[in-house]
Amino acid sequence: MSPDMTAGDPPVHGEFVALCGGVGGAKLALGLQHILGQKLTVVVNIGDDFDHLGLHICPDIDTVLYTLSSLSDQSRGWGRADETWHFMEAMKGLGGETWFQLGDRDLALHVERTRRLRSGESLTDLTAAFAKQLGIRAQIYPASDDVLRTMVHTPDGVLEFQRYFVERRCEPKVKRIDFQGAAQAQTTPAVERALSSETLSGIIICPSNPYLSIDPILAIEPLKDLLESRRVPSIAISPIIGGKAVKGPTVKIMMELGIGVTPRSIAHHYAGLIDGLVIDDQDAMDTEGADVEVFTTDTLMIDLDTRVNLARSVLAFIGELSSAKS
Amino acid sequence: MSPDMTAGDPPVHGEFVALCGGVGGAKLALGLQHILGQKLTVVVNIGDDFDHLGLHICPDIDTVLYTLSSLSDQSRGWGRADETWHFMEAMKGLGGETWFQLGDRDLALHVERTRRLRSGESLTDLTAAFAKQLGIRAQIYPASDDVLRTMVHTPDGVLEFQRYFVERRCEPKVKRIDFQGAAQAQTTPAVERALSSETLSGIIICPSNPYLSIDPILAIEPLKDLLESRRVPSIAISPIIGGKAVKGPTVKIMMELGIGVTPRSIAHHYAGLIDGLVIDDQDAMDTEGADVEVFTTDTLMIDLDTRVNLARSVLAFIGELSSAKS
Repeated sequence: MSPDMTAGDPPVHGEFVALCGGVGGAKLALGLQHILGQKLTVVVNIGDDFDHLGLHICPDIDTVLYTLSSLSDQSRGWGRADETWHFMEAMKGLGGETWFQLGDRDLALHVERTRRLRSGESLTDLTAAFAKQLGIRAQIYPASDDVLRTMVHTPDGVLEFQRYFVERRCEPKVKRIDFQGAAQAQTTPAVERALSSETLSGIIICPSNPYLSIDPILAIEPLKDLLESRRVPSIAISPIIGGKAVKGPTVKIMMELGIGVTPRSIAHHYAGLIDGLVIDDQDAMDTEGADVEVFTTDTLMIDLDTRVNLARSVLAFIGELSSAKS
Repeated sequence: MSPDMTAGDPPVHGEFVALCGGVGGAKLALGLQHILGQKLTVVVNIGDDFDHLGLHICPDIDTVLYTLSSLSDQSRGWGRADETWHFMEAMKGLGGETWFQLGDRDLALHVERTRRLRSGESLTDLTAAFAKQLGIRAQIYPASDDVLRTMVHTPDGVLEFQRYFVERRCEPKVKRIDFQGAAQAQTTPAVERALSSETLSGIIICPSNPYLSIDPILAIEPLKDLLESRRVPSIAISPIIGGKAVKGPTVKIMMELGIGVTPRSIAHHYAGLIDGLVIDDQDAMDTEGADVEVFTTDTLMIDLDTRVNLARSVLAFIGELSSAKS
């Protein structure tokens, strides 16, 4: 790859699919939406989803919805801006569970989603309806309408994702991660259509946690098959910057699982699913024997500009890979 | 009745059961709780209950819970004090239903109640748990754990209670009111125990709307049977003051149903169920041929003092009726 490729305009012909978890992935999705608008489809992890207080909560879909509609709280990193917490205060007064914070504004999404699911609507359809209602241009789809749950095996036993992530603050050591329901889970017609579209130009695996956020998507065999049989370039953005993760337990988990904290490990993890890997300027990767092209740039997204810049680099990289292929 | 009977202390030996709807009834219940503490059992209307946004909402139980725990909003007349409305704002943004206002703090009750009902707990048990959690001394019980729905027949068709009361603001003319599910509805062991207790000293029908708030309770045959076979005095407080109702559509409905807006109509309505009627100083009632004793006092409850004063008068009146009986 020539280092000057970011100078030109990105190739915005055709459509793009981004696989995405929560906060980190959503930042890039926002940058991509800025350039691609409705030509972007975001396929979101559902392994974090859970039922809490009788409500169906989809943390990653919510983060993507809030980020792409600019409703998200920038400093807290999750939930909505201008949030209040009176529901939680009152719930505490009633003796209810309060370990998982639900803001007053945020609650509307959970209540309305739960109502619509109970009335028989699919998660795909209601998520699309919310996205439209919130003025989001990109398509946002759950990876599946089936139940798939990320389970974290620890010395303290098997923990549901939110119990591990929120209640236990990622403290227990991760021995293994698996995905309950994955064997039965199907992808959706909407995701299938996006990934097999004649006008698809590229696939992007966002810099989300590979083990907790992207693997649950890849655990859906029919979806993984579509990625493996792709006819367009697929690239991933390494979530590692200078041997660290921007946020979240990626590095901690890699160390606990005995995986070297290097871009090479990320490339190896996505072997067969990507043609290129974007790594940070602070990192280096020996591409000898590696099956992927590597593009190095500043991957830290601190504001809208850096998000759009990374998105532009990613799309240019895909354009290069595409030209090289044809 | 001698007019000086309010001067003495009320008879607080034994227990009392109050039948109660929403706001007006809850005010007297608060006054009664002030004197009686845990010797008071409040049996609350469930005809207004409905499912909304997937949540089970019990407006009258909520009003009683908030009033008796001093959490209620004094000026608005319903819901909680210090309330915020961010959930509703967000729900509007998602295109959800917003005709029924749910405050952020108030929501906790609906979400937690719905969760507990779905987990198999009875409305009676969870209401008792909420009351305890909120530091309420009185017992608060729903009139039934079965489904009973107040339906308002109007020229525009049959309206569910909240559609009539909130969405249509009581505007449609009432032709008839009935109670869906009443024929099958049972009362509860808790209500039965309270009404047949050896230590029961009196029954009080609060100044709630007789047609919309008390009739749904009386529509539960086993509960009505217990009232009819009572061995202690039962009294009602007329909700009419000077030919008007303090709040709500009582007078409008009486006129639409062709019922004279007089205390006598109230006495007639509760015939067989009460031994005494408390009416306001501004009203008069010719007791000739009437089957009830009448006690006249100031029934307008504008603050805690007036609520406690009315409660004291009511208990004194029951004491008089009790002495007269024995």
